[in-house]
Formats: sequence, structure tokens, C-alpha cells
Amino acid sequence: ELLAEAAGTGAAARPCPCPLPRGDCSLSRLLRRLLSARRSLEICLFAFSSPQLGRAVQLLHRRGVRVRVVTDAQYMGLRGSQIGLLRHAGIQVRHDQENGYMHHKFAIVDRRMLITGSLNWTTQAIQTNRENVLVVEDAEYVKPFLDEFERIWEEYNPIHYRFF
Amino acid sequence: ELLAEAAGTGAAARPCPCPLPRGDCSLSRLLRRLLSARRSLEICLFAFSSPQLGRAVQLLHRRGVRVRVVTDAQYMGLRGSQIGLLRHAGIQVRHDQENGYMHHKFAIVDRRMLITGSLNWTTQAIQTNRENVLVVEDAEYVKPFLDEFERIWEEYNPIHYRFF
Repeated sequence: ELLAEAAGTGAAARPCPCPLPRGDCSLSRLLRRLLSARRSLEICLFAFSSPQLGRAVQLLHRRGVRVRVVTDAQYMGLRGSQIGLLRHAGIQVRHDQENGYMHHKFAIVDRRMLITGSLNWTTQAIQTNRENVLVVEDAEYVKPFLDEFERIWEEYNPIHYRFF
Repeated sequence: ELLAEAAGTGAAARPCPCPLPRGDCSLSRLLRRLLSARRSLEICLFAFSSPQLGRAVQLLHRRGVRVRVVTDAQYMGLRGSQIGLLRHAGIQVRHDQENGYMHHKFAIVDRRMLITGSLNWTTQAIQTNRENVLVVEDAEYVKPFLDEFERIWEEYNPIHYRFF
């Protein structure tokens, strides 16, 4: 199944007010996909500051879904980032150590559904930007992203961090 | 055909030096796809500052390919942006008038090949970021992006610009 929502996740004229899955705006569709996870959720995001999406990820973690998050070191320290809350909740998070950005914006649900596109998980992006989100379930599409996630996950293993 | 290059377009350790298509780095593969255009090229990019990609787009324009560019108003004024050069070359460019970002990063070649992902067309992104680029030729995938392009193209028509 392919779901291309190239029309942007939130129409600028009518910002999506949804607090959690109700109605059928793009954010609630994204939340429903995420909340369908039963076993695993890999998240690889440059910027993650949306409280709604943060709560959904914490809920999955509490349900016993194996959640792993990779993010960008520069962005994660900014005010409003959800990363500190996720770590506090006991979710595994790793980040880059590079000058460049860890600029991916994708998630993988149960190793079978890829969610990718231009969208960072921020309220500004959801409510006011022009964005696209692709939801793809073909293994041919999912596998290279899974492979990339595992590669990054190892590369960003804290045992490789350099402090000096 | 699907080509997922989730491994990032440029390995940070070994920046891609390619001036134009030679060798087989991710930039040269992207250039080859673009330069295959015979009739039309739609570009919808938040940030466009790569000189190599700018030259490729100008070359296509000179060859008679119908090139249309949509971009973000805030970014296009920054130093290093290719947008001024493209306009100077006679290429049609339209931009948003919104507070939010026009954050898409996709291109469509001959209305049949979609190139999309996390990559802005900037030298920093190409050489030092972790990025993904998907190249997809199935109509089912291409169409929603074509539709979005045409929608944005109309919405950003200069006759709708407000100056006061």
C-alpha cells in the first residue's frame, strides 16, 4: 500500500487542532499509523518536538513495543525537543557526532511499514509548512531504510562517542 | 523501478568531489537522473544552492526541456541560493508567500520519474549530511506529487501575490 500525502500535512489556512487521533487530519492519520505498532518502532528524525507525536511514542513504549530513536545532536538540545522526555521515559535514543546533520525523517513500524518524506515531527511543520509524507509497505522500499537505520544505530553507539 | 539511497548521498568521511557526472557517487547518480529529462522537469525544493545541480538545470533549460521551479521565499534570498541564477537564465520560478516553509524536496522528470526524500539541493547536504533520496517510476507514486506540484504552481502564481 502506498499513501502519498503530498498535499502537506496541515493546510496553512486551517491548522489541524487535533489533540489525539480524532477527525481525519494528516496528523491523526500519522498517529494512527504509528499507534498500529505491535512489536517495534524505529524512528530516525532530524527534529522531534511535537508533543502529540511524543506522547504516542511514549504510549507505544509503555505497551511494550521496542522503540529506538536516532536523532540529530544539534537539534535535540533545542527548547521544545521531545528527546529529553523520551529518554526520561526509558526509551533508547542515539544521536550523531558529526558536523553535518542527521537529516533523515523516517520511521518504520513493525519492520514492515515505512513512513518517510519531508516532514520533521514538529508542530510548526505539521501546522504551517508545505510537507509530504509517504507511507509504504512494500519490502523493496522498506528494506533499504531498515538497513540504514541499523547502520546508523551501530555507528552512533555510545561506545564510539569521542569526548575529547 | 525504485532506488532507495538511504545510505546518505555523501559519506561524511569521503566527500564527493564530482564536478559533473563522473564516477559513481550519489550526486553523479542524481545528476544522471535529472539530465535524462527530455520534455519536462518540475522542481519543488525548500533549499537549492548546489552549483552542480544548478548548472544541470540550466543545461536542461537550454536544451529546450520545460523547467518549472517552486521554492521557499525565505530561503531563496540567502547567499549561495541558485534561484537568482535560474531566474536570470530565463527559467520560471515561483515561491510561497506564507509564514510556514515550502518544505518539499522533490523533482519530477518527464512526468514519469519522481525524485524525493530528505535532501535539499545544497552542497552541505550532499557532502556532509545523512540524507535519503528515493527515485520512483510507478505512476501510483508519481501522480500525487505531480498533482501537488500543479496545485502549488497555481497557488503561487504571481497574480496572487500580495504586496501590502
